Amino acid sequence: MNTSQKSDIGIIGLSVMGRSLALNMADHGFKVSGYNRSASVTEQVMEDHPHKNLFPFYSLDEFVNSLEHPRKVMLMIQAGAPVDAVIDQLIPLLEQGDIVMDGGNSFFEDTRRRSKTLAEAGIHYLGVGISGGEEGARFGPSIMPGGEESAYQAVRPILDAIAAKAMGDPCCAYIGPDGAGHYVKMVHNGIEYADMQLIAEAYLLLKYVGNFSNLELSDIFREWNQGELKSYLIGITAGIFREADDLNGGQLIDRILDSAKQKGTGRWASIESLKQGVDISMITSACGARILSNHLDERKMASAQIEGPAIRQADDRAAFAETVRRALYAGKIIAYAQGFSLMQDASERYGWNLDLGTIASIFRAGCIIQAVFLDDITKAYEADSNAGNLMFHPFFRNRINGYQDSLRRAVSTGVLNGLPVPALSQAASYLDAFRSPASGANLIQAQRDCFGAHTYERNDRPGSFHHEWRITDDN
Amino acid sequence: MNTSQKSDIGIIGLSVMGRSLALNMADHGFKVSGYNRSASVTEQVMEDHPHKNLFPFYSLDEFVNSLEHPRKVMLMIQAGAPVDAVIDQLIPLLEQGDIVMDGGNSFFEDTRRRSKTLAEAGIHYLGVGISGGEEGARFGPSIMPGGEESAYQAVRPILDAIAAKAMGDPCCAYIGPDGAGHYVKMVHNGIEYADMQLIAEAYLLLKYVGNFSNLELSDIFREWNQGELKSYLIGITAGIFREADDLNGGQLIDRILDSAKQKGTGRWASIESLKQGVDISMITSACGARILSNHLDERKMASAQIEGPAIRQADDRAAFAETVRRALYAGKIIAYAQGFSLMQDASERYGWNLDLGTIASIFRAGCIIQAVFLDDITKAYEADSNAGNLMFHPFFRNRINGYQDSLRRAVSTGVLNGLPVPALSQAASYLDAFRSPASGANLIQAQRDCFGAHTYERNDRPGSFHHEWRITDDN
Repeated sequence: MNTSQKSDIGIIGLSVMGRSLALNMADHGFKVSGYNRSASVTEQVMEDHPHKNLFPFYSLDEFVNSLEHPRKVMLMIQAGAPVDAVIDQLIPLLEQGDIVMDGGNSFFEDTRRRSKTLAEAGIHYLGVGISGGEEGARFGPSIMPGGEESAYQAVRPILDAIAAKAMGDPCCAYIGPDGAGHYVKMVHNGIEYADMQLIAEAYLLLKYVGNFSNLELSDIFREWNQGELKSYLIGITAGIFREADDLNGGQLIDRILDSAKQKGTGRWASIESLKQGVDISMITSACGARILSNHLDERKMASAQIEGPAIRQADDRAAFAETVRRALYAGKIIAYAQGFSLMQDASERYGWNLDLGTIASIFRAGCIIQAVFLDDITKAYEADSNAGNLMFHPFFRNRINGYQDSLRRAVSTGVLNGLPVPALSQAASYLDAFRSPASGANLIQAQRDCFGAHTYERNDRPGSFHHEWRITDDN
Repeated sequence: MNTSQKSDIGIIGLSVMGRSLALNMADHGFKVSGYNRSASVTEQVMEDHPHKNLFPFYSLDEFVNSLEHPRKVMLMIQAGAPVDAVIDQLIPLLEQGDIVMDGGNSFFEDTRRRSKTLAEAGIHYLGVGISGGEEGARFGPSIMPGGEESAYQAVRPILDAIAAKAMGDPCCAYIGPDGAGHYVKMVHNGIEYADMQLIAEAYLLLKYVGNFSNLELSDIFREWNQGELKSYLIGITAGIFREADDLNGGQLIDRILDSAKQKGTGRWASIESLKQGVDISMITSACGARILSNHLDERKMASAQIEGPAIRQADDRAAFAETVRRALYAGKIIAYAQGFSLMQDASERYGWNLDLGTIASIFRAGCIIQAVFLDDITKAYEADSNAGNLMFHPFFRNRINGYQDSLRRAVSTGVLNGLPVPALSQAASYLDAFRSPASGANLIQAQRDCFGAHTYERNDRPGSFHHEWRITDDN
C-alpha cells in the first residue's frame, strides 16, 4: 500500500454505531480503515455493506499502518474498561501528533483522565459525544467533540461532512477542552429524559382527564408538531399513537407495558448535578419516574390498597388540550434551563468556556432532542450570552409569563386526579423557587442554628449570627 | 501505669464532638484517654472540663499504651484524608484484636475500604454513625455502629451507656458489616433534609395562604407537637416562631435571610440513590431547594421579571391548617418510606441484612429526626418485616388513605398560589407513581423502541418485541 492509498481515518469497533459511522464517512468520500476485535464482525460488515472507501483490517498493527499521518483513530467501543484496554494497545503503535477519538458514551471524568495520559505520550485525544442512534450515525448525527482544539481542527473536515445539517450548518462544533464533549453529551441525554417524561405526563393528562382516544391523541400531537413544540419527539409521538396492534387490533400503545427501562447514562447528569450543587430536578425526576415504573408488583399492590381520587374529566376538552400544550412548553423551557444551567456551572468549574448558544445550535438536527425550540435558545444566547438562567432570556421569560398559569393548572389537575406528574410539578417548583419572594429557607436556617449552632444570616444586615434559642421541652 | 489503671477507651480528636463524647463516657464511669494532634486543644479541654476519668496524652504512642487490651480507639476527626492519615499512624502501634472506631461522618465506601485494610492487619474496624450534634454527643446521641459484630460486642457496654435512651432502651444497635453504620447515618441525614423541607413548605402555606402570624404559627406547631407529629423538629419550630428579634423587635424568623446552607453529606444519599436506582425524590428535592435558595441575585431578578399569581387566602383558616397538618404527615410517611427503601436496597446490594425496625428504633431519641412517628415505623416492621415499602404497612397505609386528599390539596394550593412546594409535590407524585394504574411509561417504551430499537414489553404476553414504526416526516 503506497502513501496515496492510505486511509483518512480508522475506526475501531464495528458494531452498529461504529459500522454506521464508518459507512457515513465512506459515503462522504473519506477512505476508512475498519478494525474489530472479533474478526467475524469485520467480515460480516464487509459482506453486508461492501463500500469502495471502506477497508477491513484484521490486525491492529496493520490497521494503524494503513492510516495517513497524523493518524486519526476513532474508538466506537463499549465505554469503560474496554476503552482503556484499547488505548493501552494503541499507544505503542502510534506516534507523536496522532489523534485518538472516543466516540462512545464515556463518562467525562474518564475522558479527562485519558486526555492527560495520552498528552504525556504526545498523542492528542478527543472525547466525542455522538447523538442520534443508528440512523443518526449512518446519515447524520449531532457531534460534540471535546479535547485539544488543534486536534479538532485536524478532524473537523470529516466530522463536519458526516454530521447532520441544520439549515445547512453542520451539527458539529468544538465544545471545549478534555471531557467537555462527553459532558455535554451527558447533559443532552439528561434533557432527553426530561423531554420524554414531560410528553408522558401530557399523555396521561390528555388521556385520563381529556378523555382523548389514541387517534385523537395522534391528531393533537400532530397539530402540536406544526407549532412552537415542533420536534423529533413530538413528531414520533404523533406517529406512535396511530400504530395498530397487529396481534389484538386497536392501537399498539395500549398493549405496551407501563414500565420504561433506562441505560443509566441519563442518571449521570443527575449525579453530577448533585456533586456540583446545581438543581436539575426535572431531569432527576424523569430518571426517578422510570425507576418507579419498574416496580410492577408493588404498583399492583398499591393500586389495590390505596384508593385514589375519582378522575374528574375536563369540561372543555379542546381548552384542556391547549392548557396541557402550554404546560408542556413551559415545562420544556424549564427542563432546558436546568440542563443549560448545569453546563454553565461545569463550564466555570472545569474552565471549559462553553458556548451555550453554539451547543444549542448543534442539537438542532441529528439528535433525539432536535426541536425548533433550540433555534430560540441559540438566538437567546446570541442576543445576550450573560443573561443567566434561560428562564430570564426575554423570549423564554415572555413564554413563561404567558404559560405559567397553564403549567400550574396542569400540575394541580394531575395531583388532584391522582396522576403522577413529577416533572411538571418540579417545573412549577423550580419556577417558584426563583420567583417567589419566600421559599421557607429562613426557617431551615433557624432550625440549623437552633440544633447545630450553624449560625444564621440576616436580611437587614451582613454577617453571621448565632442566637441563643430558648427552646424548651414543652414546645 | 499498671494494668488496673489502664483506660477503657481512647479518643483521638478532641474538638466539639470528640470532647463531648469523651466527657459522656467519663460521666458513665469509663476511663477515657484523650489525644489531639494539636496539644493545645487537649490542654484546653483539660482546663475547661477536668474530669477524674479523662486522661490527656500528648504522644500517640503513650496514648495507645494507656489503653486496656484489646485496645479500643475512637477517631473523632474530620472525615476524608485525615482518617486515613491517623489510621496509618495507628497501625504500627496496635496489635491484633485491637478495635478502631470511626465516629465521624465518613463516606460509607471509605469505611468499607478501611475495614478491609485493617482486617488484613488483624485489627477490627467499626464505622460508627453518631447523630445528635454537640448536645447529643455530650448527653446521649443516637449511635449506628457497623463492622464486625464481635468487635461491636466488645465496645457495646460503652456505646449503650452513652447513647440516648428511648423508653429505657439505648438508641444504639448493631447495624451490619463494614460500611453499614455510616450508610445508615447518611440516610438519616437525607431524611432530616426532607423533614426540614416539609416543615418549611408547611410554613409557607400557613403563612401566605393561611395568613397566620408568627405567634399563631408557634401555637399551631405547639399543638401539632401534642399529636402524631410530635418530634424534635416540630418542637423547636414551635419555639423558633416565638423568638423575638432583639435588634428590631418583632420575631427573629422574619429577619433571617431566606437562604439555607448545607454541608453536603445530605446529598450523598441522593447520589447513592441514583447509583442504586432507587427513587428518593423528596430527599433530593430538599437538597435542591436549599441550593436554589442560595441564588439570591437570580431570585431577585425572577421576582421582578416573572409575575406570579395573586395569592388567594384560605376561607377557613383552621380547616386549612388541618389540611396542611395532614399533608405534612402524609409527606413525612412518604419521605421515610423513600429513605427506608434506599436502606432496604443497600441491605440487599451489600449483603448487610439490615433490620429496618431496629434502625427506626434507634432514631427515637438522641438525633434530629427523633419523633413519635418512629415508634410506629418500628411497630410496622415488627409486625411484618417483609411488607415492602413503608407506605404499604397497614398503619401507614391507613394514614395515607385518610390524608392523601389533604396532601393533594396542599400541593395544588401551593402550585396555584406560586409557592414552591417541591417536597410535598414529590410526595404526591411518588404516591401516584405506585398507586395510579397508568404512569405513561408505555409511551416512553414506545419512543425508545421507535428511535433506538430498544425493544418493548407487552402487557398481554411475555417477551421482548420490536415494532417497525411507520413514522414519517409529516408527523
